[in-house]
Amino acid sequence: MKARIIVTLKSGVLDPQGKAIQGALGALGFSGVGGVRQGKVFDVDLDTEDRAAAEADLRAMCDKLLANTVIENYTVEIF
Amino acid sequence: MKARIIVTLKSGVLDPQGKAIQGALGALGFSGVGGVRQGKVFDVDLDTEDRAAAEADLRAMCDKLLANTVIENYTVEIF
Repeated sequence: MKARIIVTLKSGVLDPQGKAIQGALGALGFSGVGGVRQGKVFDVDLDTEDRAAAEADLRAMCDKLLANTVIENYTVEIF
Repeated sequence: MKARIIVTLKSGVLDPQGKAIQGALGALGFSGVGGVRQGKVFDVDLDTEDRAAAEADLRAMCDKLLANTVIENYTVEIF
């Protein structure tokens, strides 16, 4: 079973990396970029066919390792 | 207009970071993780309402800055 986890910074948390990318895009001639926020994506292969168990496991993985829930949100999508 | 760009490694490209995460998940007691690949996500705000122009701009941003198209694929999603 394949899953995709997307981890993004919560709104209000400063994102200097995103700001740097926004500046670089401006320098490359892309006008009209109002903001950039960078996050992480994890594509996970799971050896189970139980969707509910897989989702519970994936959320536990996020809480324990993949996301810092103080400053980050995550979404879990199972294919 | 908001857009999300997801940049992932092409299949076949080694991902030591993903391997390390897979090992860490195993050490945390998550069995059955067959593989992990890490990628990047960019949430971009654009000051335009022209969907076609926005998509062309976003693809150009990926080709020029956000993705290394030799080893990475990207997808663009406009909301």
